[in-house]
Amino acid sequence: MSFTNASKIFKLVGAEAVLTEASDLRRYLTGISTSFGYVVSDKKGNTFYTDARYLESATKALNGSELSVKEFKAPLEDLLSGYKEIAVPVGRTLYTDYRKLVSAGLEVKDSLPAFTSAMAVKESYELDCIRRACNIADRAFEALLELIKEGMSENDVGALLEYLMRKFGASGTSFDTIVAFGENSSVPHHETGTRKLKFGDIVLIDFGCKYGGYCSDCTRTLLFGDDGGHEDFKSAYGKVLEAHMQAKEKITCGMTGKQADAVARDCLKNYGLDKYFTHSLGHGIGINVHEFPYISPKGGDKLLNGMVFSDEPGVYFEGKFGIRIEDTVMLEKGRTVSLTDSDKKLIIL
Amino acid sequence: MSFTNASKIFKLVGAEAVLTEASDLRRYLTGISTSFGYVVSDKKGNTFYTDARYLESATKALNGSELSVKEFKAPLEDLLSGYKEIAVPVGRTLYTDYRKLVSAGLEVKDSLPAFTSAMAVKESYELDCIRRACNIADRAFEALLELIKEGMSENDVGALLEYLMRKFGASGTSFDTIVAFGENSSVPHHETGTRKLKFGDIVLIDFGCKYGGYCSDCTRTLLFGDDGGHEDFKSAYGKVLEAHMQAKEKITCGMTGKQADAVARDCLKNYGLDKYFTHSLGHGIGINVHEFPYISPKGGDKLLNGMVFSDEPGVYFEGKFGIRIEDTVMLEKGRTVSLTDSDKKLIIL
Repeated sequence: MSFTNASKIFKLVGAEAVLTEASDLRRYLTGISTSFGYVVSDKKGNTFYTDARYLESATKALNGSELSVKEFKAPLEDLLSGYKEIAVPVGRTLYTDYRKLVSAGLEVKDSLPAFTSAMAVKESYELDCIRRACNIADRAFEALLELIKEGMSENDVGALLEYLMRKFGASGTSFDTIVAFGENSSVPHHETGTRKLKFGDIVLIDFGCKYGGYCSDCTRTLLFGDDGGHEDFKSAYGKVLEAHMQAKEKITCGMTGKQADAVARDCLKNYGLDKYFTHSLGHGIGINVHEFPYISPKGGDKLLNGMVFSDEPGVYFEGKFGIRIEDTVMLEKGRTVSLTDSDKKLIIL
Repeated sequence: MSFTNASKIFKLVGAEAVLTEASDLRRYLTGISTSFGYVVSDKKGNTFYTDARYLESATKALNGSELSVKEFKAPLEDLLSGYKEIAVPVGRTLYTDYRKLVSAGLEVKDSLPAFTSAMAVKESYELDCIRRACNIADRAFEALLELIKEGMSENDVGALLEYLMRKFGASGTSFDTIVAFGENSSVPHHETGTRKLKFGDIVLIDFGCKYGGYCSDCTRTLLFGDDGGHEDFKSAYGKVLEAHMQAKEKITCGMTGKQADAVARDCLKNYGLDKYFTHSLGHGIGINVHEFPYISPKGGDKLLNGMVFSDEPGVYFEGKFGIRIEDTVMLEKGRTVSLTDSDKKLIIL
């Protein structure tokens, strides 16, 4: 791939040199996944320093790109000799590393704002990866619905869904799949466990996968058989779905995260349910499954075309049940477009 | 579980208060997995602050433990008012967070040495988890060998192995499974891809799973059918296995990481293969799949009874093939004991 993210960040930052270590930022600059390495950019060009484990594969992958690949030899300071000024993502830099730069006589600038703004607005190759990840997750979820059976544990269902995502082409999961049966659904981030599925159970599944280094994120809440005792659940489901759909319809380019969050929150407030909506409406999605922008009551930044984020209102009744309905969406030509396709009408298996 | 890790760390550190945020250290103190929270310990006791997503489950899980659970209300400084001195893991603390503590008038001490030494020597409940994780991985690998077929992709094999580990009780993987066919095995950290398996291929699989929050780590290299053209591979396999076994036999309590690494490195040197052994012999394994101690040419710290680490010599011939043989081992009564059981004689499927 001949993208030019390292040069783009170098220009945006405007420092003598830019040093990048954090794995997600490194992935953004190099386009490949590595567990160790540094990218150094200056006006002469961009170099990726890594160790023997990745040298062969990185050299092959980055052949002809804007990055040259070299073996990293400690100490880090050697990469930076000759510079007077260095930009690092200050809010992502360890205190000890920052001190080393200062001790080496370097003036430290912050590269994080440049990364945050550049990574939030997705380019077409990034959108292709996210779309593909969403599509794989959709297909896996559809296939899962045919295979869920009474007596399976939360772990069984999670393992099967993760297997299906991998089988359909994902490189891995965006996060540990959350599967919550019955009253476990009232815990927004339930730890998937050994609870076995029985007729009439509510099933909440929060899942995502990676393709080409980019994440998808989706949550569905359904009924495993209708035992006739779920009127409260069904009524609340309709209201959460209404909040989810209103967010999709009314969130537009230029709104702040706070204004966007309020669309769903106000909808639930009309039903007296806002006090059960205990988290934010959404978060940016990209190389990281949680990243800028944040669609929350505190989100002051404006949403822009090309941003990808989750639309996930939820309500949680402690010890009883919870509901969350989440799609991955993007802003295109001013309006939201859903990247997650599977049906959101209440599924009763 | 009624372990008392928070009190243990508080005593080891010897500061007025200890503040812990990093997710692995937080898991060590609380025994539960959360994606957000702070543990604050002082002479009065230990408190876990988390948000609405985890409040219900954490309160339930930590009922009767040494930790009380409270909802976190920003800003962080409010948790620390009244203290003059605070210990944080300095080498794991972001520059911006460190600055906040200093700006709040706190004297900052380092808690990381206490965590590193306490977490390196495993207690029996931790060893039980690691043993169980190793056992699940062993069983999954054995089951996988029955299911590997010509034409499967590296991704297919990885997905199937991960599914089997989950099915046998793992909560997830320790890391993205590495599956490398043929010449891809020469890249120590190959990115599992679409290469399809054919008769006569070398197969390198590096895999691990989690149980109870603790990791296993194992690598096997095998032949998928013997096409008669692998004399170099077979010869090198025997030598890497010899280095692996010598490390197990000769590494004893009290050796430094460097001395331990040299056992395997010297063995390979006798065969002129040390220049192809491009990484360290091993790394500590626990809540993190890579942690202290480091069994490398630079490892200056002594290995102690109760430490768990990998024994993983490997050789890599660029563009041709690679071999790595890795077990998770522990030091017990002065000698190494293998926690990984599956056979290490060359497997020819």
